[in-house]
Amino acid sequence: MGFNDRFLRACRGEPVDCTPIWLMRQAGRYMSEYREIRAGHHFLEMCKTPELACQVTLQPVDKLGVDAAILFADILLPLEPMGIQISFGKDEGPVIHNPVRRRADVEVLRPIEPDSCGYVNEAVKMVRHELEGRVPLIGFAGAPFTLASYVVEGGGTKLYRVCKTLMHDDPTTWHALMDKLADVIIVYLNAQIAAGAQAIQLFDSWVGNLSPQDYREYVQPHSAKVFAHLDKSVPHIHFANQAGAMIELVKQAGGDVIGLDWRIEIDTAIRRLRGGVAVQGNLDPMVLFCRPEVIREQARDILERVGGRTGHIFNLGHGIHKDTPVTHVQALVQAVHEISAEILGRTQ
Amino acid sequence: MGFNDRFLRACRGEPVDCTPIWLMRQAGRYMSEYREIRAGHHFLEMCKTPELACQVTLQPVDKLGVDAAILFADILLPLEPMGIQISFGKDEGPVIHNPVRRRADVEVLRPIEPDSCGYVNEAVKMVRHELEGRVPLIGFAGAPFTLASYVVEGGGTKLYRVCKTLMHDDPTTWHALMDKLADVIIVYLNAQIAAGAQAIQLFDSWVGNLSPQDYREYVQPHSAKVFAHLDKSVPHIHFANQAGAMIELVKQAGGDVIGLDWRIEIDTAIRRLRGGVAVQGNLDPMVLFCRPEVIREQARDILERVGGRTGHIFNLGHGIHKDTPVTHVQALVQAVHEISAEILGRTQ
Repeated sequence: MGFNDRFLRACRGEPVDCTPIWLMRQAGRYMSEYREIRAGHHFLEMCKTPELACQVTLQPVDKLGVDAAILFADILLPLEPMGIQISFGKDEGPVIHNPVRRRADVEVLRPIEPDSCGYVNEAVKMVRHELEGRVPLIGFAGAPFTLASYVVEGGGTKLYRVCKTLMHDDPTTWHALMDKLADVIIVYLNAQIAAGAQAIQLFDSWVGNLSPQDYREYVQPHSAKVFAHLDKSVPHIHFANQAGAMIELVKQAGGDVIGLDWRIEIDTAIRRLRGGVAVQGNLDPMVLFCRPEVIREQARDILERVGGRTGHIFNLGHGIHKDTPVTHVQALVQAVHEISAEILGRTQ
Repeated sequence: MGFNDRFLRACRGEPVDCTPIWLMRQAGRYMSEYREIRAGHHFLEMCKTPELACQVTLQPVDKLGVDAAILFADILLPLEPMGIQISFGKDEGPVIHNPVRRRADVEVLRPIEPDSCGYVNEAVKMVRHELEGRVPLIGFAGAPFTLASYVVEGGGTKLYRVCKTLMHDDPTTWHALMDKLADVIIVYLNAQIAAGAQAIQLFDSWVGNLSPQDYREYVQPHSAKVFAHLDKSVPHIHFANQAGAMIELVKQAGGDVIGLDWRIEIDTAIRRLRGGVAVQGNLDPMVLFCRPEVIREQARDILERVGGRTGHIFNLGHGIHKDTPVTHVQALVQAVHEISAEILGRTQ
C-alpha cells in the first residue's frame, strides 16, 4: 500500500479521490488497546515515553482506517520546561501548582529550546518510521489562550473568571504572558515539524468562551504571531472550539485549514470564510452514540453540504468521548469514504 | 415617579430616552437581601410562596434601578403538574426522578391547566400590585428543548448524550415529548400574561449545544409552536444561549426580541438578523468581576456598536454569577443609562 496523501491534498485544497478523515482524540480511552497500555502506566509517563506514545498514536490508524495519525501527547507538556508545575489527577483533569496571576509570575517563566520536550520529537521520529509512509502524521500544540486559561486559572474552569479579570484589569501582564506562551508554542511546534510532523494543529479548545471583542484584543495577535513564525513547509490547522460566531476572526489569525465545531453548518462556515482556506469538521461527537444508520445519515448531511468542493477534511467538532463504541467510529470512517467518493463521482 | 416604559418601548422598537437594562437572574444569591430570605426557606418553597417570590422579585428593582422586574421562579416548575418528579439538592442542581426515555414515559405525561401553577400567577398579581406601575414585570418559561434536556437526562448535563441519541434514534418519541412540553409552556405563559405579566421571555439556555441541523429538525418547530400560540398583547423575548452561529434560525422560530449571549458582537447580530426584531444583550457576566472602569468601557463598547438604533435592551449574555459584587452591578446599570443617553443625544 502506497502513501495515502488525501489528508495533505485536502489541506492544500487539491482534488482527492474521497474525503480524508481523522478524529480529534482518536488515540484515546474509547479503544481497548489504549486502555490496556494505560492500565500499566501513568498518563504523563505515556506522554514522555516515546515507545508508548508511538504505540498509542498508531493504534487508531490500524484499527479505524483514518487518513492521518495525530501524535499522542498533551497540550500542557511544553509548560513544564517554562517552570509551570503540573500534575494530572485521576480523572480530575490537570492541576497547576503555581498559577500565574501577577507580572512577577510571568517574569520567572522561562523560554524553551527545541529539545526541551525532546521526548515529543523522539515520538514524532518513531511514529514516522513505524508508519512507513502509510498516512501523514499531525503534530499539535495548545493555542496561547487555551494554555493561558490553565496557567492562570490553575487548572480547568467553567467560568474563566480569573482569566477574564486578568486580561481586563491588568492587560500588560496578560499580554506579557500570552507573548511568552506564543514564543514557546512556536519553538515547540517547529521542533515537531523538524522531527517529521507533516502537518500541525493549533488547538484553541476554550477560546469560544470569550466575546469576539476580547478575542480580537487579547488573543488574536498572539495566535497570529504563532502562525507567522511556524515553518511553512507543512499545513497548519487552526481549531477554535465554540467560535462559530467569530470564525472570520479565527481565519484572520492564521491557518491553512480552519477547524470547526458542530455548532455551525459547514456550508455556512465555508461561505462566511470566503475561500483561501480549507475547512475541517464538523460532526457532533455525540452522534457516534446513535445507531450506525444515523451516523451514516449525519455524515452524508455534512458531505452533501460541502458538495464535492475541494479543501475539506472530515472530523468531529470536538474530541471522541471515552465511552464511544469503536464499531461506530469504524462505521463513520467507512461512511465518509464511501459517501464522499459517490458525491465526488457525481460532481466531477 | 411615573411608569418607566423604556423596556416595553425598546421591545417594540420605539424611541427611548436611554437604553433600558435588566439582568438575567437579577433576583439571586449575589444580593444579601436575597440570601437572608433564602437562609430561612428552601428554594422550592420560595418559588411556591407568592409573598416570598414577590419580595425577592422586587429586591433588584429597588436596589439596582433596573428598568424591568423578572418574576422569581424556576423553569422546571410547570413540569411537576405534568407528573415529573423533581428535587433540588443543595447546590447540586435539580434531579428528575422519573426521566423520560421511551414512548410510554411520554404517554403518561399530563397536560396542565392555567391554574396548575397557581402560585406563579398569584406571585405575578402580587408583584404587579407592589410595583404600583413603576417598571414592567417580565414572566418567563424554559423553552421546549431546555426543559426536555432536564426531563430526558434526569438533571443537568454537559454532554446531552441521552437527549441527542433519543432525538436521532427515536424521533417519534422525541417529537411527542417536545409537543407535550410546547403545549404546557403555552398554557403556563398565557396564564402568566393573563395574571399581569407585561412581557415574557422564553429561555432556551442549553440549545446552543445542538448543531443547527438538529435545531432545525428537532427543536425549531416546537419553539415556533409556542410563539404562535402565545397571547400577542405583550412582547415575547426569545433567548437562545450559545446560539450565535444560528441566530437566523432562532429568529425564524419566533419572538419580538432576540436575546444574545456574549459570544457574538451585537452589531454583527443586528446585521445578520436583518431587522423586524429587537435585540437584548450582550455583556459577558464575568465582566462584572472587573474594575468598575472596565465595566463602564465594556458597556460603552456594546452601546456604541448599537449606535443609538432603536430596539435594544441591555442585559448580560447569561445570568449574574452568585459571587458578583452588587456595587459592580449598580455601576453597570448607571453606566448603561448615562452612556446610552449620551449616544442617543448625539445621534438624534
